[in-house]
Order: sequence, then structure tokens, then C-alpha cells
Amino acid sequence: MLTPDDLREAGVDALLVTALPNVRYLSGFTGSNGMLLVTPEGTTLFTDPRYTIQAEAETGARVVIAKGPLEPTVWKHCRRFRKIGFENTRISYPVYQSFEKELKLGASLEPFGDRIERRRMVKTPAEIKAIRESVQINSQAFAAALTRFRAGITEADFAAEIEYQMRLLGADKPSFDTIVAFRENSARPHARPGRAKIDGNGLLLTDMGTFRGGYASDMTRCVHLGTPKPQTRKLYRAVLEAQTSALDKIRPGVTAGQVDRAARQALRNHGLEKAFVHSTGHGLGLEIHEAPRLGRKDATRLVPGMAVTVEPGAYLEGTGGVRIEDTVLVTPTGVEILTPTSKSLIVI
Amino acid sequence: MLTPDDLREAGVDALLVTALPNVRYLSGFTGSNGMLLVTPEGTTLFTDPRYTIQAEAETGARVVIAKGPLEPTVWKHCRRFRKIGFENTRISYPVYQSFEKELKLGASLEPFGDRIERRRMVKTPAEIKAIRESVQINSQAFAAALTRFRAGITEADFAAEIEYQMRLLGADKPSFDTIVAFRENSARPHARPGRAKIDGNGLLLTDMGTFRGGYASDMTRCVHLGTPKPQTRKLYRAVLEAQTSALDKIRPGVTAGQVDRAARQALRNHGLEKAFVHSTGHGLGLEIHEAPRLGRKDATRLVPGMAVTVEPGAYLEGTGGVRIEDTVLVTPTGVEILTPTSKSLIVI
Repeated sequence: MLTPDDLREAGVDALLVTALPNVRYLSGFTGSNGMLLVTPEGTTLFTDPRYTIQAEAETGARVVIAKGPLEPTVWKHCRRFRKIGFENTRISYPVYQSFEKELKLGASLEPFGDRIERRRMVKTPAEIKAIRESVQINSQAFAAALTRFRAGITEADFAAEIEYQMRLLGADKPSFDTIVAFRENSARPHARPGRAKIDGNGLLLTDMGTFRGGYASDMTRCVHLGTPKPQTRKLYRAVLEAQTSALDKIRPGVTAGQVDRAARQALRNHGLEKAFVHSTGHGLGLEIHEAPRLGRKDATRLVPGMAVTVEPGAYLEGTGGVRIEDTVLVTPTGVEILTPTSKSLIVI
Repeated sequence: MLTPDDLREAGVDALLVTALPNVRYLSGFTGSNGMLLVTPEGTTLFTDPRYTIQAEAETGARVVIAKGPLEPTVWKHCRRFRKIGFENTRISYPVYQSFEKELKLGASLEPFGDRIERRRMVKTPAEIKAIRESVQINSQAFAAALTRFRAGITEADFAAEIEYQMRLLGADKPSFDTIVAFRENSARPHARPGRAKIDGNGLLLTDMGTFRGGYASDMTRCVHLGTPKPQTRKLYRAVLEAQTSALDKIRPGVTAGQVDRAARQALRNHGLEKAFVHSTGHGLGLEIHEAPRLGRKDATRLVPGMAVTVEPGAYLEGTGGVRIEDTVLVTPTGVEILTPTSKSLIVI
């Protein structure tokens, strides 16, 4: 999907692709060890003998099987180029070093920047289809797990149930470690489900996502065991208002930062700005966190085809936290909320 | 767990730790974003506001909460040092760059090598205990999933069942994507479970592992649906012989490479050397793949307290593959096989 023009425009004769999601994006190869060399003549995939069969099946690129580390084999194919692009925003230092030390006089490694990641922000129709499926499975898994919920189950076992349902519904795997956080544990935005029993009265936060066909979904919902206190309802309404404000802001031409500010402003109106300790959302696709970041400083202008999460939250230490998150698509006229799950505070 | 002597010996005034498993190893912090600065005066953990509560609870190190990227905050604390060690074997290039551009005249970034990884090879009693638990849960999950096996289930659903059982038995999560590969799919060492139904006669390979208390286990077993062909039994016996040869070789003082060669020689005796396309095993602990590598070229001498996998295999394209894998511990006198699951070819 990179053309000779892309290389020319970046001022390179060839491009080394070392980040696996970018390898997959450009070649279709889904193995855990691979690099690409993109040249004006075409693309070559380098992998190891474990993937001989799979590589031939998955990619249209030329396949070279390397024994041992890939770098020396890749480098042999690089020698004839002078300006060799590399992924300076995510290559590992030792891999960079292994190429750098081989450079001949007159040849150079040229930073390619995040051009591939920027391209990946705007999803193709096939990618959008995969994300839709992932989102659907995720919401179905949430519903199925809730049906099976019994008071007294531990956070960890409910997380296990959620992930089991995802898999039975056709997910490749969870797109991140499922969060199930009861009562005060919900005040930790990245809480890990533990041995705490979900029982009695209290707020239960679940943050879950699937990979399906390689593409991610991401959703957070809060349910309440028993009747919520007025305080809790108030907190929930404030976060929902922030999420709605952010969603309402989304349309082509608006910056990622503006969406973040909309959510932040809504929480400020409730005196909760300091309780919102992360950004409003992030792109997702082949990775669970991609560009753009719906954060204060991201000036990326939204365009149709971007898939992002919208997930403001407010966390009160010792009490609990609320986060509400959808996976959404930027459309030509605004936003499509892909996540079908209700955002009322479900009382169970 | 690094002392001023360790810094002195490496010729550095301070050390930047950026690899998360090393951050955890040295500080106890289990969050997904953190760096350490180790100085003769002590250790400082840098993380973001999501982890304020968790960091204080988990680590004895001084905690600094950074807003936004960690690097600028970390760097402020580095300024007074001249020789600053960094993890050249695994730091990312952009993180390296962000530090490198701040260096003042006379200050330098010094490669610290894999000193932390080398130390991590030899497990503490607490780590061995965690690995034992992880291995036990993994084998119990295999047994529980086998009990629930019904002919006609898909590879993907059986993988889901395995991972569900792991979680119910107390695993944090799988230590890698569970492999369930039926018939010819088992010829791909890293096959992904798919929609193929496990039904009729054939070989079923499962490769599975858990994280428990942060520590990994890893096991591969083959079971056979219906009566195996003589060919399959022969292949199985050859691989088991290779695994036994490797296990018999393990004792303090032997090199990782010698263990690999023992497995390889056994397969060569059966004309299967070319069907063995990976190395014999790998260390495991906080990561599923750690040093040493039981591969041809690894000259690491085994010492008591090392935890490694022993997992030779033989793969015949179009037919199928066999791999047999235990998690084992190097003891003062030889080897302790931690994995309790039988290695007979189970016929179900």
C-alpha cells in the first residue's frame, strides 16, 4: 500500500518497516516476527522458518525466510540503496544500531516519521467492517456476561467470564486486559480485577475490548448493584454529560484536542476537572492505542473514516470512579457511535 | 535490588530503566507506564496520574508522578549525573533519542547491556514459588479443559475453554495466545486456533501458559482423537526422545547450547533434524521469553535457580507436527520438571 511516490515524497530510496502492526498493515502478514523492505520494485517480507507456510498464504509480498535474527538477512537486501528510511518513532534502539553499524560511506538511515501511522488513522472500508464486527462482538459479550452475573462472583472471575464470552462469540482475543472494578477499585482507571467479591451495594465498572480479524474494539460501562446513592447518580450524570459533549463535538475538520476540551469543560462545570486524569480517547485499529490521541495537545484534524474511542471519566479516591466509553467512527457529517450498548446506568 | 556497587561496576553514576519487566523486577511496580532512575542514593519510580494510588502501594521506591510523557520529568532528575547508564539492548529508539538530545557537554549515555536480564535468569525463591504456582494452574486448566472437551468443538472455542479455566483457577491471564491446532494445522509451530472443527481421527496440539502473580508458565501437549497411525506414534516417540535427551542434559555448568544440541541430535537419529525449526527452549519469568535461549549459539552456563522451557518439536508440512514442552527448574544436581502433566500420547 506504499507506492514508489510515497518513497520519493519521503526522500528515501527504500523503507525498512520493523513495527509489526505496520508490517501487517502493509503486507497482510500476521506472524509475530517480521520486517518489510519496501522498494520502488516492490515489497519483501522477512520472517523466520516458523512462519514459512503462513507467510506464503497471507502476503502478496515476496517472502524471504531468515534463519536466526532477521537483521543480517534484511541488511543484505538493503546494501544497494543509499537513503534508507526507517521508523524512527518506534524502532527499537538495538535494531536501529544493528542497521546503523552496517552503513557504508554515502549511505544513510533516514527518519520516515509516523507516515504509516498517520495513514492508518483513516480506515479503509474493509477495516471499518472489521472494527464494526469487533465492536458488535464486544457488546454481545458484555450482555452475555451480565446475564451470567451472580452476586458474590469475584472481579477476576467476572473478567474471565467476559473474556470467555468474547471468545465464544468469535473474538480472536481481548484487545487489552479486561478491567472489572467494584466500588473503590473503580477509582483506579487501570485497575486489575482481583479477588474482591462483587456483592452488596456498589458501582461496578467494566472496561473491555476484543480483537476480531486483527481489529480492536473498546468499551467501558458502569452498572450498579442495588440502588445508587444520589452522589453516585450525580457523578454518573456528569461523566455522561462529558461524553455526550465530546461526541457532539466530533465532525470532520475539528481537532482531536477540541474534542478533549469539550469533555474537560463539561466536567469542569461539575467541579470534576481534576478527577479526570487521562485523555478523552484514542484511535484504534490494528492496535488498541493508535493515533490520533483525543488529548489536549493533539492538533490532528478529524477526517471521515477515523475510528476513535470517546471515554471521559472521573475518579474519586476512596469512593469510586465512573468512565463511559464508546468506539465511534468519524463520518462525513459528524459521528457514528458504533457501540450499541445502552449508556443508562444499569441497576442490577 | 541494584546496589551502588552494581552501578560502579558498570561504570555509571546512575541508571535509567525503561523496560517495564525490568522496572517491575527492580521496584515491584506493575503498571503499564513507568521508568526508574537508579542512583547511589536510591531508586525513583516515574509514572503517570493513572497509577498514583497503585504506585504508592506497590513500590518502596520514591514515586514521582509525571503529567504527559515521562521522559522530560525523568530527565530533570538525571541532569546532575555525568555517566548515565541506559538499557541499550531494549530501549526504544525514540526514548533513547529524547534523552540523548538533552545531554550536556561532558555527560554521556552509557550502554548498560543486559545486566538486569542476566540477573533475572536466576530466580529468587519467591520467584520460583510464583512460577510453580503458574505451572500448577496451567496444568490444572489443561486437565479441566480436556474434561470439557467434546468432539466437534472448534479450535478457537477449545482455546477459549482453556483460557477460561486458567482464569477460574486463578491465573492473571494467558502468558501468550493459546495454540490449539488440529491435524495439519499442528505443522505450524505458531498456529492460531481457527474455525476448524476438532472431530474424527487426528492429532491435537495445545500450547498454553499462564501468568500468575506476574510469572509465566508454558506447556505443550499432544492428544490424539481416535487411534493414532503408526507414523504418528513414531513421530511422537521421536520428539519425546528428543525432549528426554534435552532434559537429561540439564545440570549446572552445562551450556544452553549443549541442551539444544542434545535435542537436535536425537531428532537427527530419526531423520527429523530439518523438521525441528525452532530452538529447544527459553527462560521464562516476568516475561514468557527470557534469557537464556536453549539454542545452538547460546553459551550461557546453566546455574541452579534458572527456569526454562524444554520444547523440541518436529513439523511435517501437510501432515502435522508434534511438540512436547515442560517448564523446568535447574537444580544443584540437575533438573526438576515442574510441569506435572503426563507426557504419554493421550488418546481421547
